[in-house]
Amino acid sequence: MGFATSIPTPSSPAGLLLTLLCAGSFIQVVHVQYTPDWKSLDSRPLPGWYDQGKIGIFIHLGVFSVPSFGNEWFVQFWKVNKIPSYVEFMKKNYPPDFNYGDFAADLKMEFFDPYSWAKIFNASGAKYIVFVSKHAEGYTNWPSKTSFNWNSMDVGAKRDIVGELEEAVRSTTSLKFGMYHCLYEWINPLYLQDKANNFTTQEFPKTKTLPALYEMVKRYRPDIVWSDGDWEAPDDYWMSKEFLAWLYNESPVKDTVMTNDRWGIGSNCTHGGVWDCGDRFNPGYLIPHKWEQCMTLDKTSWGFRRNAPLADYLSIEELLLVLARTISCGGNLLVNVGPTKYGQIDPLMEERLRQMGQWLHVNGEAIYGSKVWTFQNDTLNPDVWYTSKSASNGINTTVYAIFLSWPRSSVLSLGGPRPSSQTKVTLVGYQGAAAFTFKNRSQGGIDVTLPNIPVSLMPGKWAWVLRLEGLANQKPVLPSKKELMKKMDKLR
Amino acid sequence: MGFATSIPTPSSPAGLLLTLLCAGSFIQVVHVQYTPDWKSLDSRPLPGWYDQGKIGIFIHLGVFSVPSFGNEWFVQFWKVNKIPSYVEFMKKNYPPDFNYGDFAADLKMEFFDPYSWAKIFNASGAKYIVFVSKHAEGYTNWPSKTSFNWNSMDVGAKRDIVGELEEAVRSTTSLKFGMYHCLYEWINPLYLQDKANNFTTQEFPKTKTLPALYEMVKRYRPDIVWSDGDWEAPDDYWMSKEFLAWLYNESPVKDTVMTNDRWGIGSNCTHGGVWDCGDRFNPGYLIPHKWEQCMTLDKTSWGFRRNAPLADYLSIEELLLVLARTISCGGNLLVNVGPTKYGQIDPLMEERLRQMGQWLHVNGEAIYGSKVWTFQNDTLNPDVWYTSKSASNGINTTVYAIFLSWPRSSVLSLGGPRPSSQTKVTLVGYQGAAAFTFKNRSQGGIDVTLPNIPVSLMPGKWAWVLRLEGLANQKPVLPSKKELMKKMDKLR
Amino acid sequence: MGFATSIPTPSSPAGLLLTLLCAGSFIQVVHVQYTPDWKSLDSRPLPGWYDQGKIGIFIHLGVFSVPSFGNEWFVQFWKVNKIPSYVEFMKKNYPPDFNYGDFAADLKMEFFDPYSWAKIFNASGAKYIVFVSKHAEGYTNWPSKTSFNWNSMDVGAKRDIVGELEEAVRSTTSLKFGMYHCLYEWINPLYLQDKANNFTTQEFPKTKTLPALYEMVKRYRPDIVWSDGDWEAPDDYWMSKEFLAWLYNESPVKDTVMTNDRWGIGSNCTHGGVWDCGDRFNPGYLIPHKWEQCMTLDKTSWGFRRNAPLADYLSIEELLLVLARTISCGGNLLVNVGPTKYGQIDPLMEERLRQMGQWLHVNGEAIYGSKVWTFQNDTLNPDVWYTSKSASNGINTTVYAIFLSWPRSSVLSLGGPRPSSQTKVTLVGYQGAAAFTFKNRSQGGIDVTLPNIPVSLMPGKWAWVLRLEGLANQKPVLPSKKELMKKMDKLR
Amino acid sequence: MGFATSIPTPSSPAGLLLTLLCAGSFIQVVHVQYTPDWKSLDSRPLPGWYDQGKIGIFIHLGVFSVPSFGNEWFVQFWKVNKIPSYVEFMKKNYPPDFNYGDFAADLKMEFFDPYSWAKIFNASGAKYIVFVSKHAEGYTNWPSKTSFNWNSMDVGAKRDIVGELEEAVRSTTSLKFGMYHCLYEWINPLYLQDKANNFTTQEFPKTKTLPALYEMVKRYRPDIVWSDGDWEAPDDYWMSKEFLAWLYNESPVKDTVMTNDRWGIGSNCTHGGVWDCGDRFNPGYLIPHKWEQCMTLDKTSWGFRRNAPLADYLSIEELLLVLARTISCGGNLLVNVGPTKYGQIDPLMEERLRQMGQWLHVNGEAIYGSKVWTFQNDTLNPDVWYTSKSASNGINTTVYAIFLSWPRSSVLSLGGPRPSSQTKVTLVGYQGAAAFTFKNRSQGGIDVTLPNIPVSLMPGKWAWVLRLEGLANQKPVLPSKKELMKKMDKLR
Repeated sequence: MGFATSIPTPSSPAGLLLTLLCAGSFIQVVHVQYTPDWKSLDSRPLPGWYDQGKIGIFIHLGVFSVPSFGNEWFVQFWKVNKIPSYVEFMKKNYPPDFNYGDFAADLKMEFFDPYSWAKIFNASGAKYIVFVSKHAEGYTNWPSKTSFNWNSMDVGAKRDIVGELEEAVRSTTSLKFGMYHCLYEWINPLYLQDKANNFTTQEFPKTKTLPALYEMVKRYRPDIVWSDGDWEAPDDYWMSKEFLAWLYNESPVKDTVMTNDRWGIGSNCTHGGVWDCGDRFNPGYLIPHKWEQCMTLDKTSWGFRRNAPLADYLSIEELLLVLARTISCGGNLLVNVGPTKYGQIDPLMEERLRQMGQWLHVNGEAIYGSKVWTFQNDTLNPDVWYTSKSASNGINTTVYAIFLSWPRSSVLSLGGPRPSSQTKVTLVGYQGAAAFTFKNRSQGGIDVTLPNIPVSLMPGKWAWVLRLEGLANQKPVLPSKKELMKKMDKLR
Repeated sequence: MGFATSIPTPSSPAGLLLTLLCAGSFIQVVHVQYTPDWKSLDSRPLPGWYDQGKIGIFIHLGVFSVPSFGNEWFVQFWKVNKIPSYVEFMKKNYPPDFNYGDFAADLKMEFFDPYSWAKIFNASGAKYIVFVSKHAEGYTNWPSKTSFNWNSMDVGAKRDIVGELEEAVRSTTSLKFGMYHCLYEWINPLYLQDKANNFTTQEFPKTKTLPALYEMVKRYRPDIVWSDGDWEAPDDYWMSKEFLAWLYNESPVKDTVMTNDRWGIGSNCTHGGVWDCGDRFNPGYLIPHKWEQCMTLDKTSWGFRRNAPLADYLSIEELLLVLARTISCGGNLLVNVGPTKYGQIDPLMEERLRQMGQWLHVNGEAIYGSKVWTFQNDTLNPDVWYTSKSASNGINTTVYAIFLSWPRSSVLSLGGPRPSSQTKVTLVGYQGAAAFTFKNRSQGGIDVTLPNIPVSLMPGKWAWVLRLEGLANQKPVLPSKKELMKKMDKLR
Repeated sequence: MGFATSIPTPSSPAGLLLTLLCAGSFIQVVHVQYTPDWKSLDSRPLPGWYDQGKIGIFIHLGVFSVPSFGNEWFVQFWKVNKIPSYVEFMKKNYPPDFNYGDFAADLKMEFFDPYSWAKIFNASGAKYIVFVSKHAEGYTNWPSKTSFNWNSMDVGAKRDIVGELEEAVRSTTSLKFGMYHCLYEWINPLYLQDKANNFTTQEFPKTKTLPALYEMVKRYRPDIVWSDGDWEAPDDYWMSKEFLAWLYNESPVKDTVMTNDRWGIGSNCTHGGVWDCGDRFNPGYLIPHKWEQCMTLDKTSWGFRRNAPLADYLSIEELLLVLARTISCGGNLLVNVGPTKYGQIDPLMEERLRQMGQWLHVNGEAIYGSKVWTFQNDTLNPDVWYTSKSASNGINTTVYAIFLSWPRSSVLSLGGPRPSSQTKVTLVGYQGAAAFTFKNRSQGGIDVTLPNIPVSLMPGKWAWVLRLEGLANQKPVLPSKKELMKKMDKLR
Repeated sequence: MGFATSIPTPSSPAGLLLTLLCAGSFIQVVHVQYTPDWKSLDSRPLPGWYDQGKIGIFIHLGVFSVPSFGNEWFVQFWKVNKIPSYVEFMKKNYPPDFNYGDFAADLKMEFFDPYSWAKIFNASGAKYIVFVSKHAEGYTNWPSKTSFNWNSMDVGAKRDIVGELEEAVRSTTSLKFGMYHCLYEWINPLYLQDKANNFTTQEFPKTKTLPALYEMVKRYRPDIVWSDGDWEAPDDYWMSKEFLAWLYNESPVKDTVMTNDRWGIGSNCTHGGVWDCGDRFNPGYLIPHKWEQCMTLDKTSWGFRRNAPLADYLSIEELLLVLARTISCGGNLLVNVGPTKYGQIDPLMEERLRQMGQWLHVNGEAIYGSKVWTFQNDTLNPDVWYTSKSASNGINTTVYAIFLSWPRSSVLSLGGPRPSSQTKVTLVGYQGAAAFTFKNRSQGGIDVTLPNIPVSLMPGKWAWVLRLEGLANQKPVLPSKKELMKKMDKLR
């Protein structure tokens, strides 16, 4: 496939873009020593499994799962921002001096069965999980030595949630185990003191953040270290670059670990591992670096929200739209669920994950290990998104057109593809018929006639994928890295 | 419609059967005085709205919603039957002397919004609700005078749940308001004492059950009084017949109220109003009396169960099967949901109700106001269930064939219908085409060729309804009442 | 002793007064049948053990022991009277919809050891106890059949407090077991309904009060039935006279039971058994009927009050003053303690009880089995109170002068006694010397010279008793019953 | 005063003994710089107010006040030592996975009024308090920055207990404010890790102990820093000497602060400020250094114990014995009370403190500012203990003989005093008479004849003090420092 190979290798900065997108094939086993500066750290190739896997599950669990109201920023919104709905909720339901810490005892997790979680995640078609080990409230879901009486072994479940989940997830052979960790803490007095000192003191990272990070990496050997909460202080304050250098050079996961980009002011969408530019990122076009779209099934919260009605959850159709748009633009999709304080994944969320799994079971060919194509969104039909795969001979490329609504007319018009005489159009998962007929469109592109397939032969519901083989070679109309970076600048 | 008209009127006992099924048109405004004996009480016609409406929502809320484990028989299974899983659950999670009453304080219902419940029930296509006012645990969801400190105003929500829900439900114009009430109480010492006395004493019904029943009827004027918990003691003990006579003769709802059949040993499936023969009843054939199929979305519990995984809930396809089978056999369907202790209907249950509502929105023509047809289940195709409607001229009957799976061959074979030259076959809700073609089958019945309908024109998912007009008149092959009663005897 | 014998027998109403005070010797074993009217009921002699015993312990335990704030009228003052301090306390410390019933779960009584209570009561010198079985909050300290989920077996301790205490108290041979029972209930809706009906309906006494009273008498066979909460409704409403007739004629304690006087409007201080005219009664002179002074060690509460400082408790000196004043006027003393919600008698209260016991151990001769004397309070010295005892020959009377402060001058002046040549003055409990010298006072009475007793020979502290033997016979200057009743009328 | 002046000054080690006992008069205002070694630190004179004041109140409050069972070592005995009574208590009363941290939410202190505490402490006659700021459980009674979510502002009272108490105590002009602080923490994982490393790592003191110590000194400027929990690790591990050097050289309380002796293995009873050799120390003879007897009113616990009966508390007589023995041997007395979790000092403890205050109000002349005398315990009469005071002329010494029981014979025999012709014997607080007569005993000493004082003129109860003026000069028969140290070695 001409496009990808025409792009320089990582050692040449100009060629950064798609190499990383398909980094899997290039990963080096030579043990480079990284130095604690972004130039060196950014030069580390991403582990190949990550881009191959495409789909991850994000899991938000914490003390916020107890009030389970508003969202996981509960304590910040209640205590610091004093948002009226939060203040009212507390006034109405709790004694006047109830404090955030008082919620923790009720994070009992009495029904937490990590193996049933792992089964659900597995059935969702995801290839990795990212579990919130510690959110900005400071409570650790493992018995951290630096979080005495504010962790899941001391208060609440009285269990090592991280450890149990790690074991269960690793017992599946298909899922990688990632850990989310938040650098800052909203109401930790040591952090607030450093902040009041304009981050000229480092009591907090030295006694809390870094010991916890090192401890968790050594103890659980996560496949992903997913950092957050970096936007208030520079990476020098957090000593992030030193941590990353250790992680890449010496840690027990130095050869395989994935990281993200939230390591201090200015690093987000710029430095580190995969770029996680936020849940509202959703660009719909190429990004000059491997990126990840994190998003949540409950539209307004990452933690479980007891009073969320059905309308607040993404429908499976909405979820598949995000999935198609993300994968087609080179991103990974990180789908969030918030378990309940009693350790259950709400059946509606389980249903969404299993529906996604059903869809991927049929259409995974277009997703796993796929690469971006010349076009991402079709030029004509906004409901269509493309991925591609090189054939084993490395020359022929199969293009996948994911379409999110079935045309009323039964004719699917596509502006992107340039057919050749070898072109063959089929429906992924459809056993019922030979290739579909199509006609060249006058302004380019093709009109594919979809047959009326009996309900019982339909390959799944909600969204479908056309497999386009033997298209004419198309020069990628890709933007230059510079152009992409300029676009990014606006987004940041 | 020959069949129905060939059946005697209610004044003639032999003609009881289908008259009641279509009682709506016969209801008398003459105020008969009923006497407290089954002969008289059973002679009261059922209110017409009930058979017309077909679909109700059952709601189980109580102190059992707090442990939210096992099912709503929690205290009986834990304390009396000592079922190991319940005993273990308590041992593992509560202090040694924790008692059932201690759960009540946590039935906070902090997110209970009766209007949002009413919206969901309305969107489900249901025409009435039956709310658990008091289960066998004795806790009343209204401030009952005879349940001091063991009711929703004194302990837990501190609200009149029944009253608030009544107001919200009545604010919709489409929903009737019914109240479930359990006669016996598992661990009430007054009841246990009467029971120990072989029900020769009546301390319990005199000081607790009957005062509560009269109180609730006068206070909330329910459209349905749905009785339960009758199987241990005779109706004389409960003074049920006297209560019903008062309910029918003097109560504020005497002309409109619906009742069921659980009023003492021997009354279930035999006496009273509608017959509710249990959630496992599901007969699949005609019953010699208007009946109701109660069932629950969580396969193993009526109360909310925190640890129920998705697999324990009925899929929408399973729900629609029960619906079709029930309505085609003359029953009403009473679909149960169990709200959480914080007052929310779990989004998965909400989804099922809304999915049922979507289906009924398209296919309600075959359900609401329908009557049984000559056949209930098709003689050839077990996936097909029939209902019927007389045309306004009272002569021509439209028959509806509900089919729960789309034939792979696109040909739907039906053994029941006898076509005439006027016969016309269409798909309910399908805008896309004229009548479907069909062929007479050699052994009787027809083969209908279903077109391949584009996804976007498909009238709903999960199940479909063929509208059969102008069939040849078919003598009903109905069993005699005697035969039906014999069948019933086996079921009871 | 001339005075007592000059008084008519009970059959003659005029002679009521002192007969009852010394009823012990007259009690009839003939089983009279009492009729349910006050004339008959009032004619029943009091059991002799009661006047002999003199000292009882009152114990207030209930759900009010959980907030343990204000006093035992907590729910009435908070919810009904809305007294600001109570309302504020709740606002400050509990969630907005916390209800009174929610306190009950915390009445855990985890340290309740009835045998250690019995030991303390025994050590106090008391001869009976009166335990609050049910206060006006309605919560019963035994598993009453008519108080489902609002009793000590269902909520809170999960124990039969009454039953356990009864057993322990009866294991001492010296203590009688009495039960306090409150007729009305502040917030019981059945009571409030009867009240709203001006007590023309009797739902409450018929289904709650009376069943509970009969149940408790049959189950625990109390030596005292101490009724309370009678002032809002007539005895006809409560059916008290019928209950008392049953209690005296048929109950298992018919021959021995003691009752009090709170059985309906107008009965207090007028009808029934012993008169309990209230804790502020404290008359300081004779009463025309056997009476009892109930009072509490915490000056402002009968239930335990967590925030009571030392200053709110009676000192031992204050307690002994009440004791002396009460016994000298023919009353019994009922000293109240309020145990904690964890089942402990606060050590300060234990200390007071043991101090009283120490004092009675030395000075009990002047108390137990004593009778009133010609004077109660000395005519000259307000710190001196008298009791008396007939010698075994029935003629000579020993007079006891309890003095509550030691005269600075060492001379104790007494206005009441008329000495004879046989008169001998000694100090009860003093081993150190012969009779004290005294001088006749010119206006009558005597001046006793107290020796300077070394600290180590002092018979106790706080208060002392002079034994006066061989006084001249003194005509009692007793008021007529009519005069006494007139005085009473003012008090009532 | 011959005795004291015959003793060398502090710079001469041999003269250490009594100089420190009367250090008040020698305290230097020259600001010496102390170096972090015991020789230098031990050379700092104790602040004069301390020896003058003699009596302090110790206050134990912490999360242990919530279970309020066993004693303040609750978590250690339950979790680490697994003492059966603790394990049973938890099993019987709490859910299986209840953890120590779960208790903290209930340390509500809702009735905590620091001003009423200060009044009680003041009324007790004490001159300083020592408040438990942090016990070995780690919970801080102030919002410590290094104890996030495990302090009184975050969990429990939601108040700065230390700060509020400091303000109230300082508002009295008579009380000094001391803070107890425990170095080690039973279950802190950082400490346990250092311990497992044989204290070769110092994570715990560096991130927890020392930051907290510096923080509390700067924030509350305590008059006493009372250290504890030092016996497992050397002072080098704790960096105690560095802390003390800072405390003495630079801290805001450098000139006035008092410390004790628990700063690492080997420092107890040997180095630092006052020696606190434990509650069972009670030597009864002189100690070669200013020392303090800490002891507690509840004989078996320093924290409040809900189920302590009266018999477990010291009587006032027992308390005064400890007081007399301690002061006479040159010690200070630190009397402990354990407030309840709701912030109240139990009235029995209040009574003991006020009784001590009453006694000191009469007899304080013999206590405050007193010095040891030639004898401590009388050589003849074991119930007598001595203190002394120099007259203002510095020559004549008044000797006080505290006697704890009044002799039955009224003659008090004393073996120690050598009378002169000027000798005058009076009773402290007695207004009633001139000097008492006495006789020389043949083997030395005197027999004092106590008059029989009328109760009303008695100067207090429980214990009394003879004032002996004008005794013959007595050479002190004091042991040498070496002898004293040898005795100490056995005690340690």
